[in-house]
Amino acid sequence: MKVELISIGDELLIGQTVNTNASWIGEQLAKRGVEVENAVTIKDDKQSIISALDVALKRSEVVIITGGLGPTKDDITKKVLTNYFKTELVINEEVLTRVRGFFEMRGKEMLDINIQQAALPKSATILHNQVGTASGMWFEEKGKVIISLPGVPYEMKHLLSTQGFDLLMGRFGVQELYNQTIQFQGVGESYLADKISDIEDVLAKKNIKLAYLPSTGMLRLRFTGASSDEVKKTISETINELYNRLPKYLFGGEGKGLSEVVGDLLVEENATVGTVESCTGGALAKEFVQIAGSSRYFEGSIVSYSNELKASIVGVEEDVLKEFGAVSEEVVLQMAKNGRKKLNVDYCIATSGIAGPTGGTDEKPVGLVWIAIAGPEITRAFRFQFGNHRGRNIQSTVLTGLNLLRCQLMGL
Amino acid sequence: MKVELISIGDELLIGQTVNTNASWIGEQLAKRGVEVENAVTIKDDKQSIISALDVALKRSEVVIITGGLGPTKDDITKKVLTNYFKTELVINEEVLTRVRGFFEMRGKEMLDINIQQAALPKSATILHNQVGTASGMWFEEKGKVIISLPGVPYEMKHLLSTQGFDLLMGRFGVQELYNQTIQFQGVGESYLADKISDIEDVLAKKNIKLAYLPSTGMLRLRFTGASSDEVKKTISETINELYNRLPKYLFGGEGKGLSEVVGDLLVEENATVGTVESCTGGALAKEFVQIAGSSRYFEGSIVSYSNELKASIVGVEEDVLKEFGAVSEEVVLQMAKNGRKKLNVDYCIATSGIAGPTGGTDEKPVGLVWIAIAGPEITRAFRFQFGNHRGRNIQSTVLTGLNLLRCQLMGL
Repeated sequence: MKVELISIGDELLIGQTVNTNASWIGEQLAKRGVEVENAVTIKDDKQSIISALDVALKRSEVVIITGGLGPTKDDITKKVLTNYFKTELVINEEVLTRVRGFFEMRGKEMLDINIQQAALPKSATILHNQVGTASGMWFEEKGKVIISLPGVPYEMKHLLSTQGFDLLMGRFGVQELYNQTIQFQGVGESYLADKISDIEDVLAKKNIKLAYLPSTGMLRLRFTGASSDEVKKTISETINELYNRLPKYLFGGEGKGLSEVVGDLLVEENATVGTVESCTGGALAKEFVQIAGSSRYFEGSIVSYSNELKASIVGVEEDVLKEFGAVSEEVVLQMAKNGRKKLNVDYCIATSGIAGPTGGTDEKPVGLVWIAIAGPEITRAFRFQFGNHRGRNIQSTVLTGLNLLRCQLMGL
Repeated sequence: MKVELISIGDELLIGQTVNTNASWIGEQLAKRGVEVENAVTIKDDKQSIISALDVALKRSEVVIITGGLGPTKDDITKKVLTNYFKTELVINEEVLTRVRGFFEMRGKEMLDINIQQAALPKSATILHNQVGTASGMWFEEKGKVIISLPGVPYEMKHLLSTQGFDLLMGRFGVQELYNQTIQFQGVGESYLADKISDIEDVLAKKNIKLAYLPSTGMLRLRFTGASSDEVKKTISETINELYNRLPKYLFGGEGKGLSEVVGDLLVEENATVGTVESCTGGALAKEFVQIAGSSRYFEGSIVSYSNELKASIVGVEEDVLKEFGAVSEEVVLQMAKNGRKKLNVDYCIATSGIAGPTGGTDEKPVGLVWIAIAGPEITRAFRFQFGNHRGRNIQSTVLTGLNLLRCQLMGL
């Protein structure tokens, strides 16, 4: 079945609100093996809604509309749909009772515009909203299904999760799709494409599509194919082959970030970690702490941004600082080694670099970063040359540091 | 002019990536007085791109396309556009030189697929990309403008900000709107609306629109009106009135984040700052360090996530930790006071809280956060009760801590 999303709302078009509804519905349908073919965003405007519906019903079997069902004047979807499907509004007693209860529970007065929320198109099947006052509506027209939902994310999610998706899957016989996504660190899109072009050719013959999804310091690779045993086997074997071929870069499947993967390895080893950060300034620590339960392995950090603190708190030797400068192999090694002791941890990641946009020299340009990993057995330092963008240099250093620790933990 | 956005990418339709490009472009155009009328998201697929272009060129004067310009096989926009506009790909020497430099600077090998990024449609005006390898393309066809941009957000933003928007505004002679945005911390949308309802009435009479733009721990308020001296004067006077009325919440105009505003105050006072963090885990330090030039005032941090480090490195008394628990007024005050000394700074922000989603008790529920600010003269602690979401609790704590320091620096 071809699915189309119509998001209604001026606030989406002028960027006041990011359209997370469309991505949520897209993801939920993809999980069920259904891909959204088109997603359109339009204004809170009668003609825009009618035009979008005309187009959608020509090319799609299912149209999911979000937005425009609130009680205020600018929310007109219900009226437009009632006219479009040549039906009429009638008070739905079950809905009216629930809306009334909703206001009583909150001790609020029920206004006439709230009563109107129980006036619903006669021909529509109602999706009952237990978390708000706007009902969902399910229309059928010439074998096509049109679902209208409120734009408030948790109400929309509630209506689809409890009723909409089940009705939809039951209504259509769906050929499922199968997806797998894997995540890489430290490798660019074109490098990866080059390294796996042989694999890509084989997959293409089996109608398995590859998508490269890059972000700063990271690259996700998605496989999509029919939901057959053969495709699943091929994708699974391909992923195993990639783990063998690119173990330093391929760190895991979707759903787990790099700091979680590292966290799992640390838990497995019953080991703890801390960081001593200069150019990342706490961003590496934050990456651990944002994971719930990271207190099992993450102890803490020293952000020694100034040279004074590198000496006073971390204990980097002042003559080493003077001779080699803060951004050097010698200093980052001392930061990592001393950090292990000061923070009383098994592993310590240390960073020192020139994040930019200024502060670079010919010898030490912006983007130069040293990272050291100190462990119970070895301490190693690595040199990187990133780009000119401060935020991306920091993010790249964070992810690279995590991946270097992962490699050390895995003996790579 | 009617503007339409076409976002290309399977990852957007199946919800792996939220379409922040569309909202950013929508916001930027709205600021310039231009509203996007339609935004469509389609697959990485030749026929989808052609159909979307056919529809868009019928109803819109300007079509901005994002996505599908990377070097890999799934990125096909450039080829499709080259055929659609009946032109041909030719190597652009200027682009080739820059792409080559891009790889040389990073010491990476340039592959044939990278060279192909310099092959561009002959009839297109090139928007030059200084931050990546995919160029922007500007086509004109029957008085309509079609702009194609890479989907990577910072590359897209760079191309529009440095070239695209100016070209567009010039090409269509758009009447400019005047915008001012101010930023609040610690105040909700409805509270603010209540406090300024009198002002809002006055502005409405002068056709100056107000937009509330909330995000976690922050609220932006945007004024939009005609670009006349009277409107500019009214907005300027209104903002001054708001600075007087809400000094604890209103921290500045757009373009400067809260950590920058605090940084400016510290520079003015020739003072330094550091942080001792528990629940924020380095996120507060990161907020300082992400600002270029923050080394003038930011010295460093201790992330004492474990209780052991709160005692060993920060020097919180163990019996105080035991008696009151890590999340307490007593502990956070010691963290801030000791931090001032250990980090040798004038001001220290300390945080301790239960970020969640688990770990709460009846007495100390998830979302409870203590923040202390230690300065040369006074040290104060503040108690907050945020929500259930770990990431939002951390972010709210970071922004609240920065704003408390701002208030202390300003004597509020």
